[in-house]
Amino acid sequence: MVGGFLEHISSPADVKALDSGDLPALCQEIRTTLVRYGKLHGGHIGSNLGIVEATVALHRVFDSPLDKIVFDVSHQSYVHKMLTGRAPAYTDERLFGTVTGFTNPQESEHDMFVLGHTGTSISLACGLAKTRDLMGGLGDASGTRNVIAVIGDGSLSSAIAFEGLNNAAEQGTNMIIVVNDNEMSIAEDFGGMYGQLARLRASGGTSQPNIFNAFGLDYRYVEDGNDVTALVKAFSQVKDIDHPIVIHIHTAKGLGLDAEDAAAGVKEGRCEANHWQDPLARQGCPLGARKHYGHLAMAQLEPRFAAEPGLVVISPATPGSNGITREFRERAGRHYVDTGITEEHAVAFASGIAKAGGTPVLATSATFFQRTFDQLQQELSLNGTPVTLLVFGAGISGADNTHSGAFDIPMFANIPGLTYLTPTSGAAFLSMLDWSTTSREHGAVAIRVPGEPILAAERAADADGVTYPRYRGAVTAVDAGGKAGGATMPFAQYRVTRQGSDVAIFGLGNMYPLAERIAAHLAKTSDDGAAPINATVIDPQQCTSLDTACLEALRKRHSLVVTLEDAQMSGGWGEQVTTYYANQDALNSADGNECMRVLNFGAAKEFTDRVPAQDLYKRYSLTAPQVEQAIRSALRQHLCE
Amino acid sequence: MVGGFLEHISSPADVKALDSGDLPALCQEIRTTLVRYGKLHGGHIGSNLGIVEATVALHRVFDSPLDKIVFDVSHQSYVHKMLTGRAPAYTDERLFGTVTGFTNPQESEHDMFVLGHTGTSISLACGLAKTRDLMGGLGDASGTRNVIAVIGDGSLSSAIAFEGLNNAAEQGTNMIIVVNDNEMSIAEDFGGMYGQLARLRASGGTSQPNIFNAFGLDYRYVEDGNDVTALVKAFSQVKDIDHPIVIHIHTAKGLGLDAEDAAAGVKEGRCEANHWQDPLARQGCPLGARKHYGHLAMAQLEPRFAAEPGLVVISPATPGSNGITREFRERAGRHYVDTGITEEHAVAFASGIAKAGGTPVLATSATFFQRTFDQLQQELSLNGTPVTLLVFGAGISGADNTHSGAFDIPMFANIPGLTYLTPTSGAAFLSMLDWSTTSREHGAVAIRVPGEPILAAERAADADGVTYPRYRGAVTAVDAGGKAGGATMPFAQYRVTRQGSDVAIFGLGNMYPLAERIAAHLAKTSDDGAAPINATVIDPQQCTSLDTACLEALRKRHSLVVTLEDAQMSGGWGEQVTTYYANQDALNSADGNECMRVLNFGAAKEFTDRVPAQDLYKRYSLTAPQVEQAIRSALRQHLCE
Repeated sequence: MVGGFLEHISSPADVKALDSGDLPALCQEIRTTLVRYGKLHGGHIGSNLGIVEATVALHRVFDSPLDKIVFDVSHQSYVHKMLTGRAPAYTDERLFGTVTGFTNPQESEHDMFVLGHTGTSISLACGLAKTRDLMGGLGDASGTRNVIAVIGDGSLSSAIAFEGLNNAAEQGTNMIIVVNDNEMSIAEDFGGMYGQLARLRASGGTSQPNIFNAFGLDYRYVEDGNDVTALVKAFSQVKDIDHPIVIHIHTAKGLGLDAEDAAAGVKEGRCEANHWQDPLARQGCPLGARKHYGHLAMAQLEPRFAAEPGLVVISPATPGSNGITREFRERAGRHYVDTGITEEHAVAFASGIAKAGGTPVLATSATFFQRTFDQLQQELSLNGTPVTLLVFGAGISGADNTHSGAFDIPMFANIPGLTYLTPTSGAAFLSMLDWSTTSREHGAVAIRVPGEPILAAERAADADGVTYPRYRGAVTAVDAGGKAGGATMPFAQYRVTRQGSDVAIFGLGNMYPLAERIAAHLAKTSDDGAAPINATVIDPQQCTSLDTACLEALRKRHSLVVTLEDAQMSGGWGEQVTTYYANQDALNSADGNECMRVLNFGAAKEFTDRVPAQDLYKRYSLTAPQVEQAIRSALRQHLCE
Repeated sequence: MVGGFLEHISSPADVKALDSGDLPALCQEIRTTLVRYGKLHGGHIGSNLGIVEATVALHRVFDSPLDKIVFDVSHQSYVHKMLTGRAPAYTDERLFGTVTGFTNPQESEHDMFVLGHTGTSISLACGLAKTRDLMGGLGDASGTRNVIAVIGDGSLSSAIAFEGLNNAAEQGTNMIIVVNDNEMSIAEDFGGMYGQLARLRASGGTSQPNIFNAFGLDYRYVEDGNDVTALVKAFSQVKDIDHPIVIHIHTAKGLGLDAEDAAAGVKEGRCEANHWQDPLARQGCPLGARKHYGHLAMAQLEPRFAAEPGLVVISPATPGSNGITREFRERAGRHYVDTGITEEHAVAFASGIAKAGGTPVLATSATFFQRTFDQLQQELSLNGTPVTLLVFGAGISGADNTHSGAFDIPMFANIPGLTYLTPTSGAAFLSMLDWSTTSREHGAVAIRVPGEPILAAERAADADGVTYPRYRGAVTAVDAGGKAGGATMPFAQYRVTRQGSDVAIFGLGNMYPLAERIAAHLAKTSDDGAAPINATVIDPQQCTSLDTACLEALRKRHSLVVTLEDAQMSGGWGEQVTTYYANQDALNSADGNECMRVLNFGAAKEFTDRVPAQDLYKRYSLTAPQVEQAIRSALRQHLCE
């Protein structure tokens, strides 16, 4: 390791105290630290490598936290964290994981917001500046001096970033927008603006049309955005400026990653390699569920491209994470569109494609679909266009609090006209994808891509030499078809995969393997000697319409229904089953004993931050022993009546 | 009436068949028709008056539906409807109301989408063009030739419109984006882009920076956007063009509205006057709930401005509808910000203001809050910033299907950390607003502005000389305060406003007066001679946390709980009450008779289009006789046990 500067930096004051000649060496030390950290721990290394000098220069020139820096997405805030008292979390392996991957006010007064989604920094900065202006202007009275937003060129293509640019100029007072232009989004940059940005770079910032000027903003260009001296000079010149200005700096993403590192990390292309979600050390492991099922889906669609000109896969900027490999994208040609980080455009675009007779398949994370909620409802569901959405990363996981997949069911399941399918195996997933992309007799269809619990069950079954899912007992055929959204929907009926009595356990999507495990537990004599229970197990297949025939049929031999979902229960699916029974029973049941009892299991209404999934399952009682105990307790109460 | 052309126009072919010299007269006839229609029926008249000539020219030059025109928001599609077979709906009073106020594919093959929210036209058009390009290119094979998006300058400031502009250029093939620049948004245009647009107009379209060029788009300018001949020429020149182009036309919103009309319609300023939501004939009526309670809120906040520099009212572009008058805005000065049609920016901006110590109050419609769902969750709730949201137009209403307020509870009530308050009177509304804007000990607080049912109850009480709400029986004090979001929340406890037995009726927000009416019905001997029932009535005050102490206490004297909410029940509040009881009872009740029965009433999961609110209440059984019958039936069942 070069240097020895970092261990002496506990606040931005220590950056200011260095000789200016030492700054390049500090940058080099940070860069080496980042690469080591990335290999051992993983993280957004490429973006941080690109912004090392800019971050050092920001803390050299500005006085955080009186000057307030808002990092867009904040995945590039590792260097900022190192310079604001948190260097040991990157240098000392034992402390890796003691800081989050994004800014967090609970960690430091130098962090303004918890952020993780794209494009909001300028709007947030406008708010900070507005309060400053109302409360006494630049300085101690307001508690704020300069307001600085740091945003990448990839983030610039997202909806709210443009709104922010447009409003920043109107506000008219001090605001410094650092545009960190590394010529790259998550994958490639996409959009007409980028050609003009390239011309702007080529002209040294002098060419027109300059998009920042077009939004009414002042503008300066720094060609070498990895030259700390040039950046210190540029930032010094705009410190305390009396109007909004864009400082456009040209940086190199992944700078300092040597060829060997890059090669070892490259799975999905240059850029994605620099985003080490998993450290290189783990790369011998089998694929996670996102990539595994994403590969399956693309492999099913690809052979159809030749005969189906209108079949299009759309990814708003995160293809690699979802198994949409660079090789696939190249082979797909016009059948693949990366719209940039533009979920809103992507959904409306997909609706337009379907309207004209095409077959769009739009893939992104559950958490990012939140960004286009209104288009999901209006342009898509209200218009009834046959669009397929692949919802990756849905469900309970150890994700950080800005990327949780546990909010998807309350969102998707409550949009009129939209069908949300919850496959419980790779085969079911592909069958659903096949239906949604070959039939046009439906509106929007979202498919919850299977997660780790299902992949684990499938792999375990493979290891045992059996086919997953291992249906026991009677299986309801999926032939008659129910009605959903007015059209025949082959997955509307619940599948009874194990026929028992007393208790019926519904395992929605990822929770289906748990339902099977609970049934297996119940089938044995319990630890305290209670008799075995022969539970019914049901795969509901979807969570947007109730199969009331199935729910009613259960009354004959069951007194208890259990719903399991790995998403927020509040506003979710289980509540609807419960509400159905409660209202039916209140009006129709003359005998209390005939009322159906219901137990619901799912995630609490809360944000969780990097809590391991297994811990969350326990917290929410989504484990076989916990559910078994609740079922035995409920049935015991009932039998005592 | 001038002309007599309209009665002979049943399709665009009839526009093409006219002598070109007759086009101005046709436009004059359309303009006269629009003004008359506006006075008698109401509607978005100003925007349609501005785009008369452009619409005539579009149908003169292009061949809809082979050429596909997408009107942004589509509030300006009246002229288009007149020229595509629906003129009688505007000329014949008996047929007013037979067409919707927006484009609708069910009405005509010339309407591409059902739209009502801003900024999506370019993205939708990109989708139409993409399918065309994949399926054989311009012409009969693909079923699509030119793709045309028509978007106003006000819409341009919305997030997704920028994403669309950025993606249109990249797509690279035929697309014509008509920018209808009338120098006006819903209220004033807001944002740095508009200064540059003004320079562009002043230079005849030649100045730089040109924002459309900056997005990589070709560009032409038509100074007189109300000269049908010039427009026909301009559109003819770009018909079948092989790349995307912006045709920037300069029009006059409200052209043809004479001074007297304008004066009579002006309540909130020039622009808003031209949006006759209610025809002039009705303007003697008292204010609706939105404006009434909006006025109350602003009147409460305004006196505080002098002493509270950080108190800011934010409106993303629709102030007038929500009682935020032009006079208020002028007096408020820096304490009022119109961000343009930018809900996403507005929410992040508000979070930034609060973070820096300010007190933001953000007002817009329930339906428009959908556009910023991700910011509500991430930038706001996850960050716990003390922001107040005023949610106007929430609840069941006769709105069109693009502006329903019935989806708000599933959205707001399921965001962790956000408090959604549901006042049942003007006094409660102001009390809640006072708390949320004076305490900082809370995260995001959304207040569901009272709607027509509450205003009607308050006015009826006034007429009777009593204070509303007329609480009968014991009233639980609102002093102890519960816990919500970790902080003391004075409205966390449910208020028991009428203490009875057997059945407890929860009237959430707007449904509180109904709860009182039902209790009054039940207190009498029923039509079939059944005994009076002394019901308990409860105002839950909020729908984001359960007052479980209250729910448990009810068990003592009640066997039935009824929830009433004027929003979608699926994913809503009543389901949570039901789920609470069901889970408690399944685990704890050894005696079936002790289980709490629950009946839930609310809106179905469906889109409704201009169905009168009273009809929807009946459809959803949200009327006193229907609920009374259900309650009597449920209690009868129970008593038979």
